[in-house]
Amino acid sequence: MNKYAIAIHGGAGTILKSSMTDEKEQAYKTALEEAIHAGEVILKNGGAALDAVESAIISLENNPLFNAGKGAVFTNTGKNEMDASIMNGLDLRAGAVAGISNIKNPISLAKAVMEKSEHVFLAGAGAIDFAKKINAEFADADYFFVPMRYDQLQKAKQSDTIALDHTADTFENGEKKFGTVGAVAMDVHGNLAAGTSTGGMTNKKYGRVGDSPIIGAGTYANNTTCAISCTGHGEFFIRAVVAYDISCLMEYKGLSLKEACDKVVMDKLVKLGGEGGLIAIDNKGNIELPFNSEGMYRAKKAADSDLYIGIYK
Amino acid sequence: MNKYAIAIHGGAGTILKSSMTDEKEQAYKTALEEAIHAGEVILKNGGAALDAVESAIISLENNPLFNAGKGAVFTNTGKNEMDASIMNGLDLRAGAVAGISNIKNPISLAKAVMEKSEHVFLAGAGAIDFAKKINAEFADADYFFVPMRYDQLQKAKQSDTIALDHTADTFENGEKKFGTVGAVAMDVHGNLAAGTSTGGMTNKKYGRVGDSPIIGAGTYANNTTCAISCTGHGEFFIRAVVAYDISCLMEYKGLSLKEACDKVVMDKLVKLGGEGGLIAIDNKGNIELPFNSEGMYRAKKAADSDLYIGIYK
Repeated sequence: MNKYAIAIHGGAGTILKSSMTDEKEQAYKTALEEAIHAGEVILKNGGAALDAVESAIISLENNPLFNAGKGAVFTNTGKNEMDASIMNGLDLRAGAVAGISNIKNPISLAKAVMEKSEHVFLAGAGAIDFAKKINAEFADADYFFVPMRYDQLQKAKQSDTIALDHTADTFENGEKKFGTVGAVAMDVHGNLAAGTSTGGMTNKKYGRVGDSPIIGAGTYANNTTCAISCTGHGEFFIRAVVAYDISCLMEYKGLSLKEACDKVVMDKLVKLGGEGGLIAIDNKGNIELPFNSEGMYRAKKAADSDLYIGIYK
Repeated sequence: MNKYAIAIHGGAGTILKSSMTDEKEQAYKTALEEAIHAGEVILKNGGAALDAVESAIISLENNPLFNAGKGAVFTNTGKNEMDASIMNGLDLRAGAVAGISNIKNPISLAKAVMEKSEHVFLAGAGAIDFAKKINAEFADADYFFVPMRYDQLQKAKQSDTIALDHTADTFENGEKKFGTVGAVAMDVHGNLAAGTSTGGMTNKKYGRVGDSPIIGAGTYANNTTCAISCTGHGEFFIRAVVAYDISCLMEYKGLSLKEACDKVVMDKLVKLGGEGGLIAIDNKGNIELPFNSEGMYRAKKAADSDLYIGIYK
């Protein structure tokens, strides 16, 4: 059996064709293609879904177009505070980090928490201590200084009339965008994996943690059912335990991946008021890319099918 | 309809009758009775399940016998870093805090995150900034200095041959104990709520976050199904998304509360290697208190039944 499949996302939100230039659109498409290729090359060579997910997310984290890693947005205090998580569907092992700064690739730190500690979830300064102990790759403030992100912070601060009134990134043209990246994959051995990484919210305060580092909410993988990575208004994704809900609808109610995705993203989340989307793969390699926002940066590729890249509805 | 019910726990682990004195046992029983009374008085007067849960947990947090609030254990650096979460079954609103110090009642801060912010989950120094903004009650290091907890840290440090080798509290006699407190309740209006609060692990490093502040893992409440608060080896509870799993088994597979609890605590968690227990209440007021460890400090009371207090198997 040489069947494999991978899907990635680069965030969801108010992404409209009308507010996109051809150059910007092409830059996103190239970035998505590079990231999916980074994952696919591992799968094609018989590598693990877990490694393919990490590799695809590293590619997205290293690209300033996405709100994760290098392109992470600035918090209210001008820092980059990033969150990430990863899960292995074979044995339900998982790793997550939250509120970390100066780590080049948060997804790799999350993977190290899974593989090199007895813990699942490390946060803040303690997570940085762990990163030092395992010799994780650090990057300085210059690496993370992306002028567009800094401008976003200044604009967000100017409009900050209510202290907590920033549940989404404020973009140049008033767009809402939930900046997160993620990947899900099935390898030729039939194993599933999922990972998610985010730079959080522009002008974020109070050490807010979204769904990205929460196993069950933003990320979940289980060979029995599916692997999921979410992007959207994290508070709603936490309350709805979105990623695990899709797995449960499949395992306990017998829904297909598509039926479960439609139920959660298009029905339950909409009723709760939660905007966003997710990428999903089941243990047959079927892929779904549902979202209830205007757009979602997304791509998928399987051994036996062509590359698909999508941005708008 | 004047039916209400409440259950609480004060942690699970290697709690053996043989290593307990009569005085110590009586002190725990008195503390559990006080806590359940603090919640019941609210329910009896027609108050909200959410408030009863908060009140019962405040009572447990204020008692140095339990690893939460005043009795929180010390981290490796000699600090108290506490986590808590709360969820309202009526509307799936939730609040959580992680890695906080010097807050007298973490459960009340979690409730404030739910009620006074647009967020669900705040961590570390940012959560403390939020606590200052809303005038939460702070307590100084003297308040949290419980000699027994300090001695536990010294002993844990002495035996710390492997940096991350502390997944459970080390007690005087080598017992493992997962120190957490929690409450679940159904009020006379039929609404459910759940809350969990913990002082973490003695000698904790690296900003480890367990399941207690994770909605879906350590805490979950949904009027459609049940309210759950967990205590145990948190890493396994996160990977198994324990609290939401019970809700899903009821909603999607039609299991009773007891069947779902047995499946998750006595079967799935045991297979994964996860030790601990939980308290659960369904929307008919049925209560389950399952655990797969040697013991769990627990109590329950309903409008139409006597107080039950249990410690051992």
